[in-house]
Amino acid sequence: MPNEPLRMQLDCPLPTLDFEQITLGHGSGGLLTHRLLDGGVFSLLKNEHLDKQGDAATLTLTGRTAFTTDSFVVSPIFFPGGSIGELAVNGTVNDLAMAGARPVALSLALILEEGLSTEDLWRVLVGVKAACETAGVEVITGDTKVVERGKGDQVFINTTGLGTVHPDADLSASRVVPGTKLVVSGQIAQHGIAILSLREGLEFETTVESDTVNLNHTVWSLLDQFGGDIRFLRDATRGGLGTVLVELAQQSGAGVSLKQAALPVDGQVEAACEMLGLDPLYVANEGVFVAAVAPEVADDFVAALRSDPNGRHAAVIGEVVEAHPRQVVLQSRIGGRRVVTMLPGEQLPRIC
Amino acid sequence: MPNEPLRMQLDCPLPTLDFEQITLGHGSGGLLTHRLLDGGVFSLLKNEHLDKQGDAATLTLTGRTAFTTDSFVVSPIFFPGGSIGELAVNGTVNDLAMAGARPVALSLALILEEGLSTEDLWRVLVGVKAACETAGVEVITGDTKVVERGKGDQVFINTTGLGTVHPDADLSASRVVPGTKLVVSGQIAQHGIAILSLREGLEFETTVESDTVNLNHTVWSLLDQFGGDIRFLRDATRGGLGTVLVELAQQSGAGVSLKQAALPVDGQVEAACEMLGLDPLYVANEGVFVAAVAPEVADDFVAALRSDPNGRHAAVIGEVVEAHPRQVVLQSRIGGRRVVTMLPGEQLPRIC
Repeated sequence: MPNEPLRMQLDCPLPTLDFEQITLGHGSGGLLTHRLLDGGVFSLLKNEHLDKQGDAATLTLTGRTAFTTDSFVVSPIFFPGGSIGELAVNGTVNDLAMAGARPVALSLALILEEGLSTEDLWRVLVGVKAACETAGVEVITGDTKVVERGKGDQVFINTTGLGTVHPDADLSASRVVPGTKLVVSGQIAQHGIAILSLREGLEFETTVESDTVNLNHTVWSLLDQFGGDIRFLRDATRGGLGTVLVELAQQSGAGVSLKQAALPVDGQVEAACEMLGLDPLYVANEGVFVAAVAPEVADDFVAALRSDPNGRHAAVIGEVVEAHPRQVVLQSRIGGRRVVTMLPGEQLPRIC
Repeated sequence: MPNEPLRMQLDCPLPTLDFEQITLGHGSGGLLTHRLLDGGVFSLLKNEHLDKQGDAATLTLTGRTAFTTDSFVVSPIFFPGGSIGELAVNGTVNDLAMAGARPVALSLALILEEGLSTEDLWRVLVGVKAACETAGVEVITGDTKVVERGKGDQVFINTTGLGTVHPDADLSASRVVPGTKLVVSGQIAQHGIAILSLREGLEFETTVESDTVNLNHTVWSLLDQFGGDIRFLRDATRGGLGTVLVELAQQSGAGVSLKQAALPVDGQVEAACEMLGLDPLYVANEGVFVAAVAPEVADDFVAALRSDPNGRHAAVIGEVVEAHPRQVVLQSRIGGRRVVTMLPGEQLPRIC
């Protein structure tokens, strides 16, 4: 059973489907598949494209189009602050946003494990719908497969997104030259700690919630204001902020200098990380991004972000330097310096 | 181990990766993920989009764009005539083709089970590449996740495709009015029997191979020749030809009259179906489509198809009628009539 109410106020009662569990027949493409789709999925996610029930949806796209895919295998599928359904929409919407694009359409492909309860599937789909409405995007094509019990894990979701790139977006690691300032949009490590605390049964004074959220409106507004002064964007999901910065250093060829004291981390999350032996730099986020911006706009950029609910804790966390090319060096609170590398193994499997 | 050589002559030796099996760390987003991608995937599927390693690829699309998604969970992942890799590309390319579109770009998202051998993954990816080259499309964005042993099954693949719709395509179930002729492009039930014979250890005089193939060149050429006289296209995959025809009857509101004697079925496949108690009408295909065409072009359409290697066995199999609206009625070889319904349950799980 889900542990938390879904973050939504949609009027979506459980449909009156005549089955309580998903069976292999629901993946047959035959009668049961149609009953599942017609009786539930299509009525919930209803729009003119899905109504046509074609093999493909068609649409007309103008300008530059961004195209991105992500599969979601998070376990458990319900967690404080959201579900795999919201995560699947927000994750792909945010990957589009990091390419400077607003979402235009999503595909949704479900791999269900035989025995999944219809109610859990419905709750996941309600999460999908809620996240789509917040982001302002629709699922226009989809697919449903069912695998035998023990060959999957409840539900895996793939979302693939199409977006229209902002006309002023000029985002590329090659533009991240020395002098560029690095801004993080929010407090890090929330999502990973929310999942882990649920798995490990940890309790805090207040529940640590996943930060899963759609960043597209935030990023589009920043592109309106700062255009080409934003040089690079990436959301710090799997692998955390540390991994993103190492990727940026490697792709740009420049060095990254990072100030530990500037990293926004919630006190409770930081304590949890210490207790669990985790470095918050590597803990996954689902609503935090890094922006590399021209130095002359850095303060205004942070101020603009802080006026947005998704950027209240935004901060300049470092800059790009000539020294130590292709390396990230962290200046610790007590003045030490260490090289930040990519995580060699897996800190927290099935985080997204 | 794969049972059949892959249908390809690519020069793709196994890369010298320093691991023999996929571990959870390969899904971390960190060092091992990068090693897997940089050392193998990116070098195999190399193109300008993947080289950028962004969160999303960007491209400019003109005209009407088709957008479709499919997840592939076929078991076993290697089978006579192909692998899950070829199936994943051909399946999505064909869904685009059924919307009258040529493929422009694919996304590729892998869900790997911990313990999958690196060699098997590589063989699957070589199948992806081979199928992409035949279809004339590239994978421009992707994702890799790893789940614990027993929470997946070797490899699941999602491909999502973008295509440009033929300017003369005007495909819609609503255009399938009485008088419309129904053409099937090839012998049915091959894919399902190929998979099943492998699972059940059945042997035939000659191996029954999956018919997995890309239909985009075939369909584009037909659209060039017949344009708006082609009223509807659908590939008869999961659920088989029977399910597609029932869907067509329901979506168009018209009746479908089907002649059993006209159905092209390979003798060996038909014998296997009889032995196994399967109705070939419901057995999956991966290279066969149904076309609903204007009656005056039906003969020329079949002739054009027969001159194409993917349509050698094409035949008119029936027509759309005023009688029995929303129903498919089969006229059997001995003159009987029966209503063809959708398969109520699952005949053959994990077929695609």
